[in-house]
Amino acid sequence: MDARVTGNAAFDLSAWSAGHLARVERALERWVNADPTGGAEGGSPAELIAAMRYAVLGGGKRLRPLLVLAAAQAASGERFDASNTPEIALRAACAVELIHAYSLVHDDLPCMDNDVLRRGKATVHVKFGEAGALLAGDALQAMAFELLTPDDESIPARQQAALCRLLARAAGSGGMAGGQAIDLSSVGVALTERQLRQMHRLKTGALLQASVMMGAACAEVSSQAEDALMAYGAAIGLAFQVVDDILDVTADSATLGKTAGKDAEHDKPTFVSLLGLARASEYAQQLLVEALAALGRSGLSETQALQALATRLVNRAC
Amino acid sequence: MDARVTGNAAFDLSAWSAGHLARVERALERWVNADPTGGAEGGSPAELIAAMRYAVLGGGKRLRPLLVLAAAQAASGERFDASNTPEIALRAACAVELIHAYSLVHDDLPCMDNDVLRRGKATVHVKFGEAGALLAGDALQAMAFELLTPDDESIPARQQAALCRLLARAAGSGGMAGGQAIDLSSVGVALTERQLRQMHRLKTGALLQASVMMGAACAEVSSQAEDALMAYGAAIGLAFQVVDDILDVTADSATLGKTAGKDAEHDKPTFVSLLGLARASEYAQQLLVEALAALGRSGLSETQALQALATRLVNRAC
Repeated sequence: MDARVTGNAAFDLSAWSAGHLARVERALERWVNADPTGGAEGGSPAELIAAMRYAVLGGGKRLRPLLVLAAAQAASGERFDASNTPEIALRAACAVELIHAYSLVHDDLPCMDNDVLRRGKATVHVKFGEAGALLAGDALQAMAFELLTPDDESIPARQQAALCRLLARAAGSGGMAGGQAIDLSSVGVALTERQLRQMHRLKTGALLQASVMMGAACAEVSSQAEDALMAYGAAIGLAFQVVDDILDVTADSATLGKTAGKDAEHDKPTFVSLLGLARASEYAQQLLVEALAALGRSGLSETQALQALATRLVNRAC
Repeated sequence: MDARVTGNAAFDLSAWSAGHLARVERALERWVNADPTGGAEGGSPAELIAAMRYAVLGGGKRLRPLLVLAAAQAASGERFDASNTPEIALRAACAVELIHAYSLVHDDLPCMDNDVLRRGKATVHVKFGEAGALLAGDALQAMAFELLTPDDESIPARQQAALCRLLARAAGSGGMAGGQAIDLSSVGVALTERQLRQMHRLKTGALLQASVMMGAACAEVSSQAEDALMAYGAAIGLAFQVVDDILDVTADSATLGKTAGKDAEHDKPTFVSLLGLARASEYAQQLLVEALAALGRSGLSETQALQALATRLVNRAC
């Protein structure tokens, strides 16, 4: 018997995702451009924009944007399709993806993971040089905050500020960058399970959780719903990394679109090296149960997409 | 006769600056820390914070924070001293300095300028490694937006959003990062004076101008005053770079606290290589006159600090 937990079978995640993915792709295509805000005289330099577009467009599972949109839908209580997605949710979705994309560009640099393959393509520094990749990452981080602060009053200032707050904290020293710093210093070091969880809570968990909370910030939610979404975000954030560690040993590079077996090769501690494959898989399923339970106590109605995303995230093959 | 333009002799810039500099230093000391927002469980990793603090604290002229405070003073119509600086202006001042500091850390990396000396100290990557410097810069950029978005309602949401908007645009592809990309691709290339101005308008001008406009955003100003401050910011932004180019050939490394003669050595186009030393100096003075004239038509009263800062910036020796 398959021990995997499955979500609400009645909800068609593929159909829901398809429209939203196309919409997000078009929005990124439009915004990651020479003059996204219509502001700067003369726009941005072409070579920098080319590197930024290469880093962002035409690849990636867009998990974070989908989480933003699914959480915004749950928070608003209305089912979105690609035609009625609110501008604020679309901006939040793209902003999170820009932060994710910048982190991959910098992660791949020779002084970090020194990786040449990402999503089946040459990494940004291989194609645009190290300095070009450094600047593209830097500019993508800034652009995320540009996207969240349009000056056309399409998004209320209170929400612009809330979204910037959530994203900045998740990206910074108490979030993603902090987690990467711990990762960097943990090569060849024996970590406890608790320390490993803390590293991943920051490194990947913070931005995944922020995706959920930024979606929630696109509407008004009760503090009960907010707490539940926080718990959901924490559980899937950790589950994502546990599954990543499992796939690093069980999948091949072609399936992953990146170099497999890298963690073991670099002697990095992982949930698999610490718990073994079987217990790591059980742990991922347990976290999925926690995530779904959190949604159950949220008091929100439109949580089908969040349920289905959590389920797919944990049971994914790449 | 000395042809240098001088500002209002009655205003004592040194006395004004001293209190503000101490206040800014204390604020940076407090905020660039393991848990600046009181949010993240467990705070940020110590080694990352150490690199960030090394990059930010105990050095630098703090020109950008002083511009923020001087502009906030002009916009509010009240003279600030270190005891009554509004929280919003202090946060804006420190946020701009964090962006400046991150840009220096990344600029100094081997794949960029490969510099080992900054403010008379070893650069961040020499002391903390390349990956450590990369992450410290990334985290400093995020922290700038954290500083601008406190969740304690000490700053109205409208101003939080406006400050994030100004800073993100100035830092990104249409501002500082864009200018650095042009700089990168201009080594050994013959630029026209217009292209050189465009490069510097983005590379250093955008953040200096944003410092002025962020100060203005700390209070309400008329559109006449806003236009005048924009013009002031543009003029001093460009003047700063012209003087930088002059000092690169006329000052020595010990005075500058960084490697002198670097631009010529790297065959980078500068205002001196393009205009010659005498005409570059005249150009700087002309820009100072433009900046002071803009203040004159702003309709603002408390502009003495802005006048004095512009004058010092152009007539500086390091």
